[in-house]
Amino acid sequence: MTIVITAFERSPDGGKGLARDTRVRWALEEVGQPYEVRPVSFPALKEPAHLALHPFGQIPTYEEGDLALFETGSIVLHIAERHAGLLPKDAKARARAITWMFAALNTVEPPILELVTARLLESDKPWSQERLPLVQDRIRDRLKPLSARLGSADWLEGGFSAGDLMMVSVLLRLKPSGLLDEYPNLAAYVARGEARPAYKRAFAAQSATNAGKSPTG
Amino acid sequence: MTIVITAFERSPDGGKGLARDTRVRWALEEVGQPYEVRPVSFPALKEPAHLALHPFGQIPTYEEGDLALFETGSIVLHIAERHAGLLPKDAKARARAITWMFAALNTVEPPILELVTARLLESDKPWSQERLPLVQDRIRDRLKPLSARLGSADWLEGGFSAGDLMMVSVLLRLKPSGLLDEYPNLAAYVARGEARPAYKRAFAAQSATNAGKSPTG
Repeated sequence: MTIVITAFERSPDGGKGLARDTRVRWALEEVGQPYEVRPVSFPALKEPAHLALHPFGQIPTYEEGDLALFETGSIVLHIAERHAGLLPKDAKARARAITWMFAALNTVEPPILELVTARLLESDKPWSQERLPLVQDRIRDRLKPLSARLGSADWLEGGFSAGDLMMVSVLLRLKPSGLLDEYPNLAAYVARGEARPAYKRAFAAQSATNAGKSPTG
Repeated sequence: MTIVITAFERSPDGGKGLARDTRVRWALEEVGQPYEVRPVSFPALKEPAHLALHPFGQIPTYEEGDLALFETGSIVLHIAERHAGLLPKDAKARARAITWMFAALNTVEPPILELVTARLLESDKPWSQERLPLVQDRIRDRLKPLSARLGSADWLEGGFSAGDLMMVSVLLRLKPSGLLDEYPNLAAYVARGEARPAYKRAFAAQSATNAGKSPTG
C-alpha cells in the first residue's frame, strides 16, 4: 500500500530540514519504506480538503490506504510499530523508547517552540531583547538534565530508537541559537543523528521538495 | 504486580487536579487498575533517587515491577495498550486515538504552557500586560480548529479514548483563563470529561494526597 505524506510546497526554513515532514521521512528511511510526497501550498493548508486530513492545518500528514494520520509523534510511532528498526523488541525497552519520544515532544520541545515563537513573532516587540535570556534559560533547564542523563552514551537508551529520532529532531531546532554547543555531549548526539544514512536521505529529499524537484531526485 | 506512581507531596495548585499525576490516576481509574502513590517533596524531586526515575526531576513516574516510566503521554499509552477501556480494538481507530494524544501534548498544550509560564514566571515583568493577549491569541489559534473539528460530537473520534483523556486534561488548564468559555462546545467537552466517574475518583484521590491523607482515603 503506497504511503503518501504531505510537506510544505516551500518550507519557511528554505529546506534546512526543520519542517516536521523531515521527522517522518527520516523514520520511513530508517525502516526502508518507500513513500510519495504531496506538496501543499500555504493557502491550501487552511482549505477544507487539507483540514479534513489535519484539523490544525499543518504538515505532515500520513496516508496509507484508508488510514489517515497527523502529528509527527503519532506517525513516527505508527511506522515504528509496524516495521523493524525503530523500537526494541523487548516490551520494557520498547516502552522506554516510547517514553523518550514523549519526553522530546512534551518536555524538551515546548520551551524550544517558545524561543522559535519569540524570534518569529515577537522580535519587533519592545521586550524582545530583555525577554530572550529568560526563554533561553528555560531551555537550559531541559538541556542540563538531558545532558546529564545521556552522559557518554551514544543514544538515550541502548541502541538508536524512535526516541532518539524525535529527540535529535527537536534539538536540531536549536542549532542556530548556539545553546546546543553549551552541552558538548548533546551537540555530538545531534551530529550522530545527522550522520545516519537514513537522516541524510531524508534531508536530501526534503531539500529536493523545496527546490521544486521530485522527492526522489 | 503493584503499580506505584509518584505525585507532589503538596501540589503547587493546592489540589485542583492540574498536576500531571491526575492524568495517570484518571487512566488507571478508567481501566480499573489499583495503584499506590508515593508523594515526593520538592527538594526530593532533584535528588539522585528521583532523577534515576525521572531525568527531568518531575512527577509523575510509573513503576510496575522492574519497569519504570516517566512522561504522562507514555504512561497513559502504556496503560491504554495493556487494559481495555482507553483504546479502540480496531487498529486504524486505535492509531487515530493515539494521534489525538499527541495532538493534545504537542499541538494544543505548548501555547497553553506558554500562558502558564507567562503568568507564573513573567507576571512581574514590564511587558506582562501587553504580551498576554498575544499568548492568548496563539491559544485561540488551536482552540478554534479543535472546536470546529469536534463540532457537536461528544468525543473527538467515536467513543471516549485516551486521546480525549489527554485533550480534556490539557484543556482543563485553561479553565481559570476564561478562554475555554469562548468555545462552548469545548467547555461542554471538558465538563463531559470531568463528569466521568473515573475522573471524579482520580480528582478525589489527588485531592486527598494534597490534604496529606492516604490516596485511598
